[in-house]
Amino acid sequence: MATATVATTFTPLHDRILVRRVEEGETVRGGIIIPDSAKEKPQEGEVIAVGKGKSNDEGKVFPLDVKAKDRILFGKYSGTEIKIDGEEFLIMREEEVLGILKS
Amino acid sequence: MATATVATTFTPLHDRILVRRVEEGETVRGGIIIPDSAKEKPQEGEVIAVGKGKSNDEGKVFPLDVKAKDRILFGKYSGTEIKIDGEEFLIMREEEVLGILKS
Amino acid sequence: MATATVATTFTPLHDRILVRRVEEGETVRGGIIIPDSAKEKPQEGEVIAVGKGKSNDEGKVFPLDVKAKDRILFGKYSGTEIKIDGEEFLIMREEEVLGILKS
Amino acid sequence: MATATVATTFTPLHDRILVRRVEEGETVRGGIIIPDSAKEKPQEGEVIAVGKGKSNDEGKVFPLDVKAKDRILFGKYSGTEIKIDGEEFLIMREEEVLGILKS
Amino acid sequence: MATATVATTFTPLHDRILVRRVEEGETVRGGIIIPDSAKEKPQEGEVIAVGKGKSNDEGKVFPLDVKAKDRILFGKYSGTEIKIDGEEFLIMREEEVLGILKS
Amino acid sequence: MATATVATTFTPLHDRILVRRVEEGETVRGGIIIPDSAKEKPQEGEVIAVGKGKSNDEGKVFPLDVKAKDRILFGKYSGTEIKIDGEEFLIMREEEVLGILKS
Amino acid sequence: MATATVATTFTPLHDRILVRRVEEGETVRGGIIIPDSAKEKPQEGEVIAVGKGKSNDEGKVFPLDVKAKDRILFGKYSGTEIKIDGEEFLIMREEEVLGILKS
Repeated sequence: MATATVATTFTPLHDRILVRRVEEGETVRGGIIIPDSAKEKPQEGEVIAVGKGKSNDEGKVFPLDVKAKDRILFGKYSGTEIKIDGEEFLIMREEEVLGILKS
Repeated sequence: MATATVATTFTPLHDRILVRRVEEGETVRGGIIIPDSAKEKPQEGEVIAVGKGKSNDEGKVFPLDVKAKDRILFGKYSGTEIKIDGEEFLIMREEEVLGILKS
Repeated sequence: MATATVATTFTPLHDRILVRRVEEGETVRGGIIIPDSAKEKPQEGEVIAVGKGKSNDEGKVFPLDVKAKDRILFGKYSGTEIKIDGEEFLIMREEEVLGILKS
Repeated sequence: MATATVATTFTPLHDRILVRRVEEGETVRGGIIIPDSAKEKPQEGEVIAVGKGKSNDEGKVFPLDVKAKDRILFGKYSGTEIKIDGEEFLIMREEEVLGILKS
Repeated sequence: MATATVATTFTPLHDRILVRRVEEGETVRGGIIIPDSAKEKPQEGEVIAVGKGKSNDEGKVFPLDVKAKDRILFGKYSGTEIKIDGEEFLIMREEEVLGILKS
Repeated sequence: MATATVATTFTPLHDRILVRRVEEGETVRGGIIIPDSAKEKPQEGEVIAVGKGKSNDEGKVFPLDVKAKDRILFGKYSGTEIKIDGEEFLIMREEEVLGILKS
Repeated sequence: MATATVATTFTPLHDRILVRRVEEGETVRGGIIIPDSAKEKPQEGEVIAVGKGKSNDEGKVFPLDVKAKDRILFGKYSGTEIKIDGEEFLIMREEEVLGILKS
């Protein structure tokens, strides 16, 4: 499923964001191809969709600082893995985002 | 019991919602039918009923963003399993909902 | 002791409620009667008495949404078991109530 | 030491209360007297003295709902055991009181 | 070092208090003198010095309810043991004090 | 990648900062060169980039006290290790910074 | 490095303070010199430098009650050990300080 399609079909709740890990080509260490299961999962991703923001105790909503298409870094154990139409995504709270990469 | 009936007979409290897992047909991997107990439970569900909302410290109630009939995604260990008239449902807080799927 | 009597002799404190589990007849699975100790305790109950409500930091009291005689669902490990005049009851906070069943 | 004496010689701090367990006669199950150490400690008690109440963040004090001489129920592991003049008492916070028994 | 001296040389910070355990004579159970290491430490103490009080989020300071020379009761594991000039004291927060004994 | 480049390509989120550990030359203890894996990682670092600050519940943003180019000390287990263009950095919250070294 | 130098070169962040343990001469118990590793570390220290204070949610800063040169007591496991120019210091939050010794 194309990213555009997922972005229009899934809306993260509140301060959550939908992220696709940025997969690199297979890593080569010392000439040996490391198969997929032994590789560490990348901690870089692309934001696909964002929630409407976090509410305070008076019901006021604050939009997120992270936007769709941002390239972000996150911690190894951040987010919940979820499959949408067979493709793996991460859903995490904005607070789990470490920062934004500009290209 | 029909969904409509459950929705009229059970009212989740405060910011809780009643969810029915969306069961898919039996999964086939490599031609072998995987029996029910070995399958992972789906993390997708349909909202059947919602509570009236969360109160702040002054007693003001904020209605939920999630509505009945929404298709939602949630984490593997979200919610409390409960049987109503012999059918299994999940009751969870709105905060455990990861996002809403539009069809 | 009749329910009415318990309700007049015991007042739960603050946001607590007194609940009697709704016991069903002995369950039969595949023709074998399951004795009492092997049965899961029911997660359905009847509210017998309710506290006056929860106070905020300014001392304002908010009455509970749950009322005496409501049929409620609650989690497996909710509440504190307590005997009043030899009969078993549960005392739980309103926040542990998952929702209300209408009949 | 008489209860009246303890009540005048010990003042629980803030939202704490001083409780004496209500000891019943030795329990008989199936004709066998159960010695004291095998009995569960009763979860019922009499309030002997109460603190002046809980303060909020502005220093305003809210008196307790529980009063001296109230018969209360509490959880199995509630409170701190303490000896005053050789007699055992429990000191607990009002929030640990499950409810009040009227006689 | 005399108590008066300690009180003038040590000032507990904020809502902390300096306490000296009230040691009783050696306990005798069934005619056997129990040496010091086998005895439970007493949960009674004398307040030697108190901090200036607890501040709220606006910087307002609320003096403590416990005063120097008060006889107090506290939980078995309350406070931090500390030596001042070779003598053992406890430093605890006022919230750890269970109540005050009047003599 | 030069520090200046990283600083312009990565923006830490909210109250987070990007830190590069200050690596010292190999340590010599008693004449024996300690190889890299046995050395404790330094707890000193240089701030490369800082987030825009922490928001309070009304959405007001407070800039950080720590600035880019500050030399800081931090705890052994502070921060999340992350690679940017093959170089190792730490991302931590400002609250994890112990203090600032002036040179 | 002299204390004065450290105080001018290191500024603890917010409500943190820089502390040097007050080392006593080697302790002698029963005529046996106890070597350094077997000795308990002293819980007494001298404040070398203090942060500018703690901020509340509106950004207002409250200066610390502890000042440089104060002799303080702290708990056994308080603070983070850190080396500045080869000398060991502790960095702790003011809340970990038990009290101040006047001499």
